[in-house]
Amino acid sequence: MNILIFNEYRHEKQEEAVRKIYPNGIHGARADLFRADGHTVKTVTLDDENCGIDRDVLEWADVLFWWGHIAHREVPDEVAALVRDAVLNGMGFVGLHSAHNSKPFRLLMGTACSLRWRSVSKERIWTVSPGHPIAQGVPQQFVLEQEEMYGEYFNIPTPDELVFLGWFSGGEVFRSGVTYRRGLGKVFYFQPGHEGFPTFYDPTIQTILRNAAAWAGRTCRGNVLDCPHTKALEEA
Amino acid sequence: MNILIFNEYRHEKQEEAVRKIYPNGIHGARADLFRADGHTVKTVTLDDENCGIDRDVLEWADVLFWWGHIAHREVPDEVAALVRDAVLNGMGFVGLHSAHNSKPFRLLMGTACSLRWRSVSKERIWTVSPGHPIAQGVPQQFVLEQEEMYGEYFNIPTPDELVFLGWFSGGEVFRSGVTYRRGLGKVFYFQPGHEGFPTFYDPTIQTILRNAAAWAGRTCRGNVLDCPHTKALEEA
Amino acid sequence: MNILIFNEYRHEKQEEAVRKIYPNGIHGARADLFRADGHTVKTVTLDDENCGIDRDVLEWADVLFWWGHIAHREVPDEVAALVRDAVLNGMGFVGLHSAHNSKPFRLLMGTACSLRWRSVSKERIWTVSPGHPIAQGVPQQFVLEQEEMYGEYFNIPTPDELVFLGWFSGGEVFRSGVTYRRGLGKVFYFQPGHEGFPTFYDPTIQTILRNAAAWAGRTCRGNVLDCPHTKALEEA
Amino acid sequence: MNILIFNEYRHEKQEEAVRKIYPNGIHGARADLFRADGHTVKTVTLDDENCGIDRDVLEWADVLFWWGHIAHREVPDEVAALVRDAVLNGMGFVGLHSAHNSKPFRLLMGTACSLRWRSVSKERIWTVSPGHPIAQGVPQQFVLEQEEMYGEYFNIPTPDELVFLGWFSGGEVFRSGVTYRRGLGKVFYFQPGHEGFPTFYDPTIQTILRNAAAWAGRTCRGNVLDCPHTKALEEA
Repeated sequence: MNILIFNEYRHEKQEEAVRKIYPNGIHGARADLFRADGHTVKTVTLDDENCGIDRDVLEWADVLFWWGHIAHREVPDEVAALVRDAVLNGMGFVGLHSAHNSKPFRLLMGTACSLRWRSVSKERIWTVSPGHPIAQGVPQQFVLEQEEMYGEYFNIPTPDELVFLGWFSGGEVFRSGVTYRRGLGKVFYFQPGHEGFPTFYDPTIQTILRNAAAWAGRTCRGNVLDCPHTKALEEA
Repeated sequence: MNILIFNEYRHEKQEEAVRKIYPNGIHGARADLFRADGHTVKTVTLDDENCGIDRDVLEWADVLFWWGHIAHREVPDEVAALVRDAVLNGMGFVGLHSAHNSKPFRLLMGTACSLRWRSVSKERIWTVSPGHPIAQGVPQQFVLEQEEMYGEYFNIPTPDELVFLGWFSGGEVFRSGVTYRRGLGKVFYFQPGHEGFPTFYDPTIQTILRNAAAWAGRTCRGNVLDCPHTKALEEA
Repeated sequence: MNILIFNEYRHEKQEEAVRKIYPNGIHGARADLFRADGHTVKTVTLDDENCGIDRDVLEWADVLFWWGHIAHREVPDEVAALVRDAVLNGMGFVGLHSAHNSKPFRLLMGTACSLRWRSVSKERIWTVSPGHPIAQGVPQQFVLEQEEMYGEYFNIPTPDELVFLGWFSGGEVFRSGVTYRRGLGKVFYFQPGHEGFPTFYDPTIQTILRNAAAWAGRTCRGNVLDCPHTKALEEA
Repeated sequence: MNILIFNEYRHEKQEEAVRKIYPNGIHGARADLFRADGHTVKTVTLDDENCGIDRDVLEWADVLFWWGHIAHREVPDEVAALVRDAVLNGMGFVGLHSAHNSKPFRLLMGTACSLRWRSVSKERIWTVSPGHPIAQGVPQQFVLEQEEMYGEYFNIPTPDELVFLGWFSGGEVFRSGVTYRRGLGKVFYFQPGHEGFPTFYDPTIQTILRNAAAWAGRTCRGNVLDCPHTKALEEA
């Protein structure tokens, strides 16, 4: 599978504490994971020209993982629109953590994707669709000792499938893992993954990332953006 | 209820045949209907300044009916974004016919909303959710002798509710009536309503428009666009 | 509106502590609420002949509230099937608390409706569909100091709409308020309401019960149980 | 994959015309297909003891294909309940044609699964979820020259996914391919397959059957029928 990984890559450059956790960037940690599984991986970052994203790389990609946090606005609108169109035409999209607020995810949802937040909390993640491909190998519940709290009301469309719910020690709940179909492509949003914690090294989180890649990966390729004019198939 | 009606209002000005059917514009026909029911109605058109749409009128409106066909691109992006945000904050949105391709509807859906089309066909509309509020008073099936054919594949998100299916004599089918929640607001898209036919005078269509207004009308008002920072509710 | 209330009515007879909270039975507390709103209310209990339920009373009812806990098996299968068929033909059904395990609810769901449970926990209920009619007047979150814990995995079909999520101090989460359409009727399940706590006197809970009655109440009446043989509408 | 095929197997015994089309029974035609793909196939029929269905064979099966038409009532209630429970615990279920009215499918749906019907019609099937695994290799639309007409209103729950829509020359439409999750298992219902026509030899239909087996096949195995009593995970 061809996996494209986008990372904002600012925290790691600017903050020693983050760099210590992810010395090769958050994208690097995920790239290692997928490469070890035999996938072909390409990483791009916000400071690459046009975020390193053009039609060719999106045609190449079977699935795009997106992580961003503090600089969503610097992603050009044209890049976000290209990503949306690539999803409609069959590419998978996995939004991680603050990608809820990223331009491509918001375009694909049609909502503000707003939520309540707080810096640090203990999180317990519950599997509410244990038969779902993304939940295979994931226990009924598991703990992240430190995560950024994202809480309801989460302004998203009704998910096609609700896979995970988050419980936070501060009293909040969150739809932490949700899926959508958009055109020919599939979308998965997953809430954990703050830059300040080693979440992406957690083995259960890695299982979910692997499952997400397999589930969201392209099943077909097409052009469903245009409105074809057609002839009648039956005689009146 | 406060009903806002947007009409592109170009066909009626440019084509004698359309003007004969809708001498006061397509917006006029619907405005008459809703006023007769006792609603307060305001109509705006593409050629009004900023489409006649600003924050104030969207705050005032409980539901916005949208009809456009050949000039979607002339609607400013800012106006489309205002409409989307008003829906997220509680206003209802009813898209009629070619509004599938309008900027506000596409923003709310997150997809291309593309479809197959052909000029004229007989259409038979089937109610597939007979308990739905929008289907009350609507027979199990009814005929429009002449409609523009809109056929699958219709590139929309999985509808929250599928209310009507269209059968076309040329061999096509279509999800002709679909609902969505977006934030605090409700969205209904309904396919019939080509400018060249007197569809909006059909009594069954009028029943559906009335039901759509009642169903999609605002149930609350809020601001769900922002991400509040919050304190923990429980002690760790 | 005609409201039918079914209560198992065993705890109140057998346990002094429960009788003190609900001296007229759990059905009595809800009957008072709805009568004060001007509805016509009829209450029936498990020990009535055939649970007090026959075709006539189900035809009369616009919505049926169901509460049961320890004696689900004593409800005759025929009564459960009558209730299911009445829902399919337009009656609303609101299942409260342990009604998740009642025969009519399980018949309507098609699943085991199993869940994890524990006697007492603090619960915090979050509104995740703030625009939904059942959530009107309900704050973004509220607390029940003592409730029975019902936790995921909850073996139900994907809800049409997820209205409330429950957070429990013991670390669990639950889809506490869910809606479904079944035929012409509507179904709402709501998790709080253990017999040992005064949950049904809580003003927010009462708002939810009122909203549930209005939302689930019959919008039409029909017979959708049979498969009619039909003639072609178009000539081949 | 282990594929279990249930066939009522009455038409083939009683009607020469049907026997000519399916000399080894409708189950035989499907068994040949799946065996050619390398699957392990077991066929059972209504006249086998207990329909040939017990806990062991359901544990063995990854997916169960069900075809029945005129003798649904002869399937014992206990067998239908075993099938439902096996689906909840992870087995896939594919209902073909008149299986809409079979006991296991109705149990899994919770509705009457009633529909309109007429003996013969030309059918055109449209793919409305072209990215769905079950639709891979299936054209945008294809024709069955002769099929039994099954038309709306189809009394089923809102499908999780609507994959195919049927257009009939007599003027009807139908949700011809729909999916559901039930517990750990997946359910697909597909409308074509009348015993009087060689539908199951159609290459496109065979592609859909293959895809359905792959999609609905078991992803896991568990017991989600019971309500475990649990201890708190967090200290109060």
